[in-house]
Amino acid sequence: MTVSNGTRSWQEIAHDYQKHRDETVARVDPAIPDAPAKLPLNVTGLPKQLLSAREIEITEQTVPELKQKLSTGEWKCVDVIKAFLRRAGLGQKLVNCVAELLPERAIKRAEELDQYLEEHKRPIGPLHGIPISVKEHLGMKGLDLNAGFCSFVGKVPDEDAHLLKILWEAGCVFYVRSTQPQTLMHLETSSNLCGVTVNPFNRALTCGGSSGGEGALQGIGGSILGIGSDIGGSIRSPAANNGAYGFRPSTYRLPTGGYASAMPGADSIVGVVGPLSNSLEGIELFMQTVIDAQPWLKEPSLVPLPWKQPDPNWFTDHSGKFKIKVGVLWTDEVVKPHPPVLRALKEVVEKLKQTEGYEIVEWKPYKHDLAWDIIASLYFPDGGAKESAAIDSSGEPWRPLSEFIIKDNPLVKAHSIDDIWFWHRQRNEYRTDYAKLWNSTAVKDHGKGVLEGAVDVILCPVGPGAAPPINCARYWGYTSQWNLLDYPSVVFPVTKVKPDVDVTETDYKPLNDQDEYNYKLYEPELYRDAPVALQLVARRYEDEKVLKALELIQKATGAPFEK
Amino acid sequence: MTVSNGTRSWQEIAHDYQKHRDETVARVDPAIPDAPAKLPLNVTGLPKQLLSAREIEITEQTVPELKQKLSTGEWKCVDVIKAFLRRAGLGQKLVNCVAELLPERAIKRAEELDQYLEEHKRPIGPLHGIPISVKEHLGMKGLDLNAGFCSFVGKVPDEDAHLLKILWEAGCVFYVRSTQPQTLMHLETSSNLCGVTVNPFNRALTCGGSSGGEGALQGIGGSILGIGSDIGGSIRSPAANNGAYGFRPSTYRLPTGGYASAMPGADSIVGVVGPLSNSLEGIELFMQTVIDAQPWLKEPSLVPLPWKQPDPNWFTDHSGKFKIKVGVLWTDEVVKPHPPVLRALKEVVEKLKQTEGYEIVEWKPYKHDLAWDIIASLYFPDGGAKESAAIDSSGEPWRPLSEFIIKDNPLVKAHSIDDIWFWHRQRNEYRTDYAKLWNSTAVKDHGKGVLEGAVDVILCPVGPGAAPPINCARYWGYTSQWNLLDYPSVVFPVTKVKPDVDVTETDYKPLNDQDEYNYKLYEPELYRDAPVALQLVARRYEDEKVLKALELIQKATGAPFEK
Repeated sequence: MTVSNGTRSWQEIAHDYQKHRDETVARVDPAIPDAPAKLPLNVTGLPKQLLSAREIEITEQTVPELKQKLSTGEWKCVDVIKAFLRRAGLGQKLVNCVAELLPERAIKRAEELDQYLEEHKRPIGPLHGIPISVKEHLGMKGLDLNAGFCSFVGKVPDEDAHLLKILWEAGCVFYVRSTQPQTLMHLETSSNLCGVTVNPFNRALTCGGSSGGEGALQGIGGSILGIGSDIGGSIRSPAANNGAYGFRPSTYRLPTGGYASAMPGADSIVGVVGPLSNSLEGIELFMQTVIDAQPWLKEPSLVPLPWKQPDPNWFTDHSGKFKIKVGVLWTDEVVKPHPPVLRALKEVVEKLKQTEGYEIVEWKPYKHDLAWDIIASLYFPDGGAKESAAIDSSGEPWRPLSEFIIKDNPLVKAHSIDDIWFWHRQRNEYRTDYAKLWNSTAVKDHGKGVLEGAVDVILCPVGPGAAPPINCARYWGYTSQWNLLDYPSVVFPVTKVKPDVDVTETDYKPLNDQDEYNYKLYEPELYRDAPVALQLVARRYEDEKVLKALELIQKATGAPFEK
Repeated sequence: MTVSNGTRSWQEIAHDYQKHRDETVARVDPAIPDAPAKLPLNVTGLPKQLLSAREIEITEQTVPELKQKLSTGEWKCVDVIKAFLRRAGLGQKLVNCVAELLPERAIKRAEELDQYLEEHKRPIGPLHGIPISVKEHLGMKGLDLNAGFCSFVGKVPDEDAHLLKILWEAGCVFYVRSTQPQTLMHLETSSNLCGVTVNPFNRALTCGGSSGGEGALQGIGGSILGIGSDIGGSIRSPAANNGAYGFRPSTYRLPTGGYASAMPGADSIVGVVGPLSNSLEGIELFMQTVIDAQPWLKEPSLVPLPWKQPDPNWFTDHSGKFKIKVGVLWTDEVVKPHPPVLRALKEVVEKLKQTEGYEIVEWKPYKHDLAWDIIASLYFPDGGAKESAAIDSSGEPWRPLSEFIIKDNPLVKAHSIDDIWFWHRQRNEYRTDYAKLWNSTAVKDHGKGVLEGAVDVILCPVGPGAAPPINCARYWGYTSQWNLLDYPSVVFPVTKVKPDVDVTETDYKPLNDQDEYNYKLYEPELYRDAPVALQLVARRYEDEKVLKALELIQKATGAPFEK
């Protein structure tokens, strides 16, 4: 959409924005059915009731399955994109996850792709016809780019974000732009432009955030491959909360050129873009496709690391036998995870222990409280001035989690240059200490950087619980930890909250206020049906290795245990 | 050395520092001959007169030649290091390039290496016995670490810098620490601790800087492999001024952990370490040895890019034929290079034009004045507060080029966080624009980052002239340009100033004040014997490629044309 915010009030801006959004949904043909007047808490069953069997079949493919059918012409791109437009639009009616649909340009694109395949007898690229959903703050030519601020409405880029250009050249179809929170700095999705996006598995809970529209689209089946961004958990939280895969790559591997931010030029902590998908293969295809395009030639901050094919040496012990050493982080000792998370971890660990080739060791947390102090001191080095101005200049109210992370956050201070250098030194030292810790897990250091028997990956929670109730996602530590360290981290679905099994730990003594807050949040029945995910982490720039390790761990354990 | 600066005056600190230095020189056995009472301007012939033929033979090897003799036991490490201690110590007497010699620890180390080889019948590592000189501000366990400031004297690290540990494990011998300027931010070498280091080819001229002790050691033959650091030209200027090779790698390839800086935590413009050598092979061996040690496992800011072996595809045209496309930058259009530099460039270009497989194109400068505004605005984001405090706290006087680059530099301002983000955006945009420029030299863009016929390397001046008279190195643009862009750049010797040939361009109309200043500096006779070098530059992280291209260009042209 393009609108000028001109002299309009923020209410008018938001009203027009939503009106535009609803019009894009209304333009989908055939018309998207209305949601039932009384929605159940869990709406994930509704698409099957309200859409055609064919539409369900199309939208429940994995990316490689769909790729196979589209690249051979077995299915038409147009049919596929129409099904996704319908399911995403229905998702909007159920959980409010859409910023705008793009029916006309998506169908036009799909028609061109179908024509290309017919003429050339080959797909246009590795993503021929694959529908990709996009978090709003990745710029699209001629469309609004607001990053969740009313005051930004009316900014319109004159070209697509670099990442989108690459995906387009690979053959994809963009069809929906998804919701995000005010500031992009919530682990939920709540803005004055779009309202609150809720969790399709349990509408009383958050979809997560900040890529929450993407997460909810995954949960409701309106997307099988989408793009989020992550500086503290913003891909992984919504992926986890919606039973999807989500990957935060190492920094400077995927292009961020053309994404909107309230603090352009800030780079003390670097945000990344990354994929969410209903399959691990979708994540891998996305990563490889983008990196194969050598984006560093156009975006010089990127590192020219080609996408590596799996290397048998990654998981081989000294004698050449298959071996993965998994460090298990049960708790960060700041906030203890809720029972369903610990159960998920236990179930995976138990199965791995029974599998040949897996060595499980405890991974002791290393000063995760300090890690938070460092990253939170570096998120808003101007004391939140830019973010505040972006909110206040339109008069829109502060959403509760914007207040939480900026105004109520004692670590947010207007730094001097000297302060910021202090925190950079803290950051660098923490990273070095953590590397030393990791190296120390080796049985033997052969010199020349060859470590024998070191931990390969860390298995850990994604958060201190499954998706919490709205406005309660106030602990970032389980994801921001890996942003600070810049370790690639992937989340994957494991189970769902089972109120009968995941009972409250009644005699627990909280460690601190944050831990108490989190402990008190958990009431089993309140979390019913919420997906439970885990996170797998590798060392910086071992992006390919962590994804391969997850593939192997899934095979070994049979996870996810619940669909 | 270790001294406490305690309550001493800066004069006492400097006096004690120099006394210590002179004692280390005096401890070399056999005693180093005194320099003649009346030194000629060009002292490069004196070592041959004052040292033994054997010492000259040893110290005039290239690194691979020496490696061959040491790793087979043909020559003893002890004999080699003694010769280098003598020649470096003589260098101190001739051009004042030594911060301290390390005779005892170097000889002890060499003896141990000789013993190792005798026992194990193999070298301890790829640098077995190779003498390496080290710029003072790379920390050495138990030795002073002052970065050129009197106030820093007395700081003593409890471990070696990461880089030095790796080189040590590879078998090298550290024997000399070399001079550097106050602030490390001169393209000359002048401090209150050590005085002024001068150019061995012409003592009226500067040795360059800030790794000027290293440069002068190369010039006088007291080192064949040394370590400098570079944030604006500090490896390349002294290498060029002394007829040596010097390489500024891309950032985050070599470890900088444990080097001293007045602004730790600042990372808007990132300094690097890198080698100086009397041969290109010395540069390559250094790079490969360090990177083979996988330093990223201990220093997480580093990028895990293995050292690439030469790839025939680097220099192959579409039909598979050998082809190098060289962009020639004659002038940056801010300050025009002096006649000897333009002659050197012309001589190389003419020879390349006559060689099969070389395509020469003009490389138009792109806003080099803006590039300087950006980098100079980001060198001292605190307005020079930290540097000033490091100088003023001891009461030492400001050296002229410290005043020039900090106090008299209109771009040095105490930035707000907002200002620094502004300049980061300028920096990022400039880098992107330059990448676009480079991409535009391709004949065809095959997509997926495959550019056909793009320029491979840029050939350009290292500075606006050969080594200028003392305190006159006031234009950084030809080197700082590539720091801003983070392009790997190597300098190599080409010729020497020939006053009869390199006559002044009498009717030149200067472009601006800087250009006029530089133009007026040039008087042919004043620059007699000064080495003239050129610089070869490739795109970010094409470190291996730029070194290989230089090897080929040297073969094609026969450079250097004067020894």
